[in-house]
Amino acid sequence: MPMEKTFEWPIRVYYEDTDCAGVVYYANYLKFMERARTEWLRQLGWDQQRLLHEYGLVFVVVKAEIGYKKPARMDDSLTIKAQLSACGGVAFTFTQQVCRGDELLATGVIRCGTLEAKTLRPTKMPESLANQLKNIVS
Amino acid sequence: MPMEKTFEWPIRVYYEDTDCAGVVYYANYLKFMERARTEWLRQLGWDQQRLLHEYGLVFVVVKAEIGYKKPARMDDSLTIKAQLSACGGVAFTFTQQVCRGDELLATGVIRCGTLEAKTLRPTKMPESLANQLKNIVS
Amino acid sequence: MPMEKTFEWPIRVYYEDTDCAGVVYYANYLKFMERARTEWLRQLGWDQQRLLHEYGLVFVVVKAEIGYKKPARMDDSLTIKAQLSACGGVAFTFTQQVCRGDELLATGVIRCGTLEAKTLRPTKMPESLANQLKNIVS
Amino acid sequence: MPMEKTFEWPIRVYYEDTDCAGVVYYANYLKFMERARTEWLRQLGWDQQRLLHEYGLVFVVVKAEIGYKKPARMDDSLTIKAQLSACGGVAFTFTQQVCRGDELLATGVIRCGTLEAKTLRPTKMPESLANQLKNIVS
Repeated sequence: MPMEKTFEWPIRVYYEDTDCAGVVYYANYLKFMERARTEWLRQLGWDQQRLLHEYGLVFVVVKAEIGYKKPARMDDSLTIKAQLSACGGVAFTFTQQVCRGDELLATGVIRCGTLEAKTLRPTKMPESLANQLKNIVS
Repeated sequence: MPMEKTFEWPIRVYYEDTDCAGVVYYANYLKFMERARTEWLRQLGWDQQRLLHEYGLVFVVVKAEIGYKKPARMDDSLTIKAQLSACGGVAFTFTQQVCRGDELLATGVIRCGTLEAKTLRPTKMPESLANQLKNIVS
Repeated sequence: MPMEKTFEWPIRVYYEDTDCAGVVYYANYLKFMERARTEWLRQLGWDQQRLLHEYGLVFVVVKAEIGYKKPARMDDSLTIKAQLSACGGVAFTFTQQVCRGDELLATGVIRCGTLEAKTLRPTKMPESLANQLKNIVS
Repeated sequence: MPMEKTFEWPIRVYYEDTDCAGVVYYANYLKFMERARTEWLRQLGWDQQRLLHEYGLVFVVVKAEIGYKKPARMDDSLTIKAQLSACGGVAFTFTQQVCRGDELLATGVIRCGTLEAKTLRPTKMPESLANQLKNIVS
């Protein structure tokens, strides 16, 4: 993955993130990846409270593929990378990496969709946001 | 604590519950205690979706005091005990224990309150529920 | 997926599992799926404390693919299904489903590997366990 | 609480932290408070991997008292405050606050103890650390 237009977000590993095998618990990489996506959206001007209160929309994950290569541990300082790799009017896909310095610890391909918050039914995202995202992909 | 009218709920410890010290992570005892309170309410006929959809109410914890005595570990089979020790019209208090067989691992005193779901402001619980709970305390 | 030899494990959804979109948080399906795999192993006679203390081994997830179809909600009673779909000497794969009655809410393909607990390096699982698992797959 | 010698740590609230009542889940305040204690220790030169690997010690919480005053929500930017309020040779106590700007959302009194990592039995912390901490309290 050439990650030229990649957003990076630093994460520190705490006790809460680890399990009794001495490493970060496998489900918690999904939390880390989401924090990076959330901060990426925020720096584009879209926090998710705004999305909910102004537009009545929520983003949800519709598909997640995670590859675990090396374990992260307590006190590790990690970099979570996120790159928008595809975007339509409803759904969009991130290619993500969890790194410790130069070491690649985990990879993710995360497909998100847009739902109407009240009904939880798929719907289009705001056109201004879709245009903004499509420009970032291409 | 004489726990005569005590409700008991079994819990199995999984990887998700532990941390890299090899024991159950300290915040997760609050999850375990809540599961027992939730199941206690359910067997009284009050699940919290009903409370929300019929009455527009949510219960929240307003105070929690937890004492950690011995660690629980991966694969442990625990019993979570809950006893209603006080109840007014808005708030109510549980005395709780986390046990592994005869061993007492943790204690909790959990005070809950009733909020209007929309505003998150304190309000009275349904009178029928308050009466039901007060009978259990006394 | 014809799930003939499928193991099923019941899960109740609590507050701890949900998020502010009103549904089960996406990473928590990985916890649910792991609980079913853990209980499946346990009923085969292999709890993971035994694996660690007798053999010095831990199982880890090396790849996870999750498809989210419909949301689960607070108080839902779910069935988590697990079927062993492949097994070698080191790694093994589960096909999993999260169901609410007849509704399929999520699917998972989870590939696990065996590590030496001290070094966290890949190694073979105990031969007796490998033989037991291979019989279940075929 | 006059919090003159108070350490402050910023926290952002993500989906993972919230529950279906629309607010931060009550157990997660314990995670937030621990992050601040961990970072406070780190800036004193003591990360917990060092404590484990050089001294064979782990810190654990032995008592936690949490008061919940106002809810935190998705996307909130919080400040977690930590002040060492007592310290002996084995145990030490923090007074903590969770704030959103000027608003006090939650308070905590967290008593920690020192355990030998292998046996999980109480023991003294390193004398140099005890001296360092006692100077901060007084």
